[in-house]
Amino acid sequence: MTNLYDRHSVLLARAVEALRTRAFWTPFPEVPSGKVYGETAKAEGLAAFEALVGKAFDMPGHPEMRRVGRENAPWGKALSISYPANDPATLIAASQKAADKWASVDPETRAGILLEALTRLNAMSFLIGHSTMHTTGQAFPMAFQAGGPHAQDRGLEAVAAAYSEMTGSATAVTWEKPQGKHAPITLEKRWRIMPRGVSLMIGCQTFPNWNGYPGLFASLATGNTVIVKPHPGAILPLALSVKVLRDVLAEEGFSSDVVLLAADEPGAEVTKDLVETQAFSIIDYTGSSVFAAWLRKNAGSALVFTEETGVNSITITGTDDFAGMCDNIAFSLSLYSGQMCTSPQNIYVPQGGIETDAGHKHFEDVVSGIVAAVDRLLSDGAQAASICGAIANASTFERVEKARQAGRVVRESRETGFGSSATPLLVVVDDREGGPERNECFGPVSFFIACADAHDAIAKAAAIATEKGRSRQHFMPRMAP
Amino acid sequence: MTNLYDRHSVLLARAVEALRTRAFWTPFPEVPSGKVYGETAKAEGLAAFEALVGKAFDMPGHPEMRRVGRENAPWGKALSISYPANDPATLIAASQKAADKWASVDPETRAGILLEALTRLNAMSFLIGHSTMHTTGQAFPMAFQAGGPHAQDRGLEAVAAAYSEMTGSATAVTWEKPQGKHAPITLEKRWRIMPRGVSLMIGCQTFPNWNGYPGLFASLATGNTVIVKPHPGAILPLALSVKVLRDVLAEEGFSSDVVLLAADEPGAEVTKDLVETQAFSIIDYTGSSVFAAWLRKNAGSALVFTEETGVNSITITGTDDFAGMCDNIAFSLSLYSGQMCTSPQNIYVPQGGIETDAGHKHFEDVVSGIVAAVDRLLSDGAQAASICGAIANASTFERVEKARQAGRVVRESRETGFGSSATPLLVVVDDREGGPERNECFGPVSFFIACADAHDAIAKAAAIATEKGRSRQHFMPRMAP
Repeated sequence: MTNLYDRHSVLLARAVEALRTRAFWTPFPEVPSGKVYGETAKAEGLAAFEALVGKAFDMPGHPEMRRVGRENAPWGKALSISYPANDPATLIAASQKAADKWASVDPETRAGILLEALTRLNAMSFLIGHSTMHTTGQAFPMAFQAGGPHAQDRGLEAVAAAYSEMTGSATAVTWEKPQGKHAPITLEKRWRIMPRGVSLMIGCQTFPNWNGYPGLFASLATGNTVIVKPHPGAILPLALSVKVLRDVLAEEGFSSDVVLLAADEPGAEVTKDLVETQAFSIIDYTGSSVFAAWLRKNAGSALVFTEETGVNSITITGTDDFAGMCDNIAFSLSLYSGQMCTSPQNIYVPQGGIETDAGHKHFEDVVSGIVAAVDRLLSDGAQAASICGAIANASTFERVEKARQAGRVVRESRETGFGSSATPLLVVVDDREGGPERNECFGPVSFFIACADAHDAIAKAAAIATEKGRSRQHFMPRMAP
Repeated sequence: MTNLYDRHSVLLARAVEALRTRAFWTPFPEVPSGKVYGETAKAEGLAAFEALVGKAFDMPGHPEMRRVGRENAPWGKALSISYPANDPATLIAASQKAADKWASVDPETRAGILLEALTRLNAMSFLIGHSTMHTTGQAFPMAFQAGGPHAQDRGLEAVAAAYSEMTGSATAVTWEKPQGKHAPITLEKRWRIMPRGVSLMIGCQTFPNWNGYPGLFASLATGNTVIVKPHPGAILPLALSVKVLRDVLAEEGFSSDVVLLAADEPGAEVTKDLVETQAFSIIDYTGSSVFAAWLRKNAGSALVFTEETGVNSITITGTDDFAGMCDNIAFSLSLYSGQMCTSPQNIYVPQGGIETDAGHKHFEDVVSGIVAAVDRLLSDGAQAASICGAIANASTFERVEKARQAGRVVRESRETGFGSSATPLLVVVDDREGGPERNECFGPVSFFIACADAHDAIAKAAAIATEKGRSRQHFMPRMAP
């Protein structure tokens, strides 16, 4: 057992215990406060971020044929950072070359290295927060949490789950099978973990670390090597993560190329080229169902793990706090301008209205109550920007514009005055086959749908969840059987 | 918790413990002895088998549109048993109708029912042995073990592994997230196991129960319903298993249709029709890589678990017991006429020979030593039949005949005089691209291949293992994520 496993064994044991009990527990505080992260952490994080802007990102020893980098600037601040880039064959060869030693060590050694990396990433959470903010368009508090401690939680959970699976059975036994009066058959049995091979982690634009860490750390913990392919609009958060992992690997005597970066630019994405090599044993992906289907078809023998688009619903059948409900829904609709996998899109309300603490509310009363709550919440531009953030991808504006034609607009989307912004567009639509609410409309767009009654509203929400919102996440072992 | 869980909870706990320690343990004795199974068990098992022959197999309450049944008679004894048969839509509808209640109960209830079924199947091991013998062509002792206690071990292992996974994390927790000076966020969280849906278990001809029980019992333990599609040549062992499961299910108040039989006849197999309904969430299959590839392509969103053909090798580089080695290899080549997934096919020997306790042995000495050992082992017809068993499938004879043309025959395949038999054919072949030893030749055929030296022999055996023998078994969770 290495020094790093010893250093982090208590952390690992507590994480394994939390997996078992499912109670709340985290070693990574979510509050972006100097009291927690050190009085100078905030200023140092900002300075570290500014020092990266406009420069060639330093990735010692990483294979490099050229430089690329044309990331998003949702808040208007262009990063202008260049990253090492390579053709797929070079990256895959480097990954394969690094594989044997990483595969051969015990689960403790790998867990120690990964927990050291997560601990260092946690200390960098302010830098990661700024990197996440200026690539995804999240407001800083969300960017800090989602790119920093919450993503680190997910990385830790992956390491703990992998460690738990890898150590749940004996790795050696003297196996004795009785043979009646004869001497027993005795076998000295030994088992060792066999990784699957090279893993590809395809990052997404809105939550690069949060969606990326589970696959990244699970593949590494189980002894696979990983090529990280960030979204071309949001490279920096994952580049920082890859760099920290490479640093710790090198310090511990492993090839840094156990983790590699496959950066690219919008319009010249390398994802399909990578996948079509058929060199991967595992592929992790977060994003559209269309590309996920392409992956499943073209991934060869790779295990494909995806988190895909869905349609989230709110069904309103009554409340004992109408004002509170409207405020709560307004916040959910506004947060990060509907760019979260949990953002509600469809709001089902009985045509005849609902009973509330403020008396009967007709369908139109519910609609106007929520519209007014959104207007109230976002009345101040700076506060609106702190809630809505900015829009990560220009195609979201096109979807908002198209959704305006989908029905009766009851609230127009507006700018906050900060960055590329769009507050919620709210549209009353008819419930009909092929209606606009039947598919995901990613971004700050929500639809009100009048239903026959409460049962019909629940049935409609259940149907869309079954059809479009069914989880496509698959969890399968990252070790060879 | 039900009565059946209470009855078998110690058995389950010991099986879970054996999974963890990997030490030898079984509750199902492998010796076909009256001392173990009761003095009358042997006679009763045979009588029960004879009572089934030539009759309509009784499967109370099973959907039935017609009767089918044209099983193998490798020992010359035709079973002439008819089984209920249905179109795929009827079976799938019945399975789906039975699903909800089975899915909704706790893991303990399901485990109790499955362990009761395994315990009853164990008591029926003599009947199962005769059923396995007269469908697969195994000699009785192997048929008893592989169709009975060893298959039951595998079913028990599947139940224990599923139970262990389903109960490893809390199912309820009061989740409290601190909020600094404010009151914590408190959530009452509940989890429940979500099965995937209807499972299809496609049985094989040579080891119907042994290869079928892991998928069957794993799917059931995790709350899925199962349609069992036996090989048309070997229905009876799985029909008996399905019947016992249906009996216990009905006694415990569940629909028997949680487990259904999809029997068919040679030349009119229903497997493709079943798969093409795309109604299955899980498919288990043992057999050829060609059909496994078809399954993966046509299974839709089903998880496909397969055990496929491979090429097993022996590499001889020296020995301190030449006579013992030859006898041991002779037994491996002869046992069940090479119809086991572990039967050796390719024997790699250095061209220049090997060092042994009996002096240097040239390549030809090694070949003739093994040939002589096979001849010696099988010199008596009755003993040969007890080792070689009979041939399950007529196409095996065609492969033997074709292999005679593949090189220099050093031992001809012969009949034992009992049933449809074939003793080992041994052929010296050249090592060349596309040689006959490069693909699986299922049945009593082995090839000797002369190699440059010991290192070359090991390299060749390793290469064929990587190319053809790589395990295709995938183990993935049978619960929805």
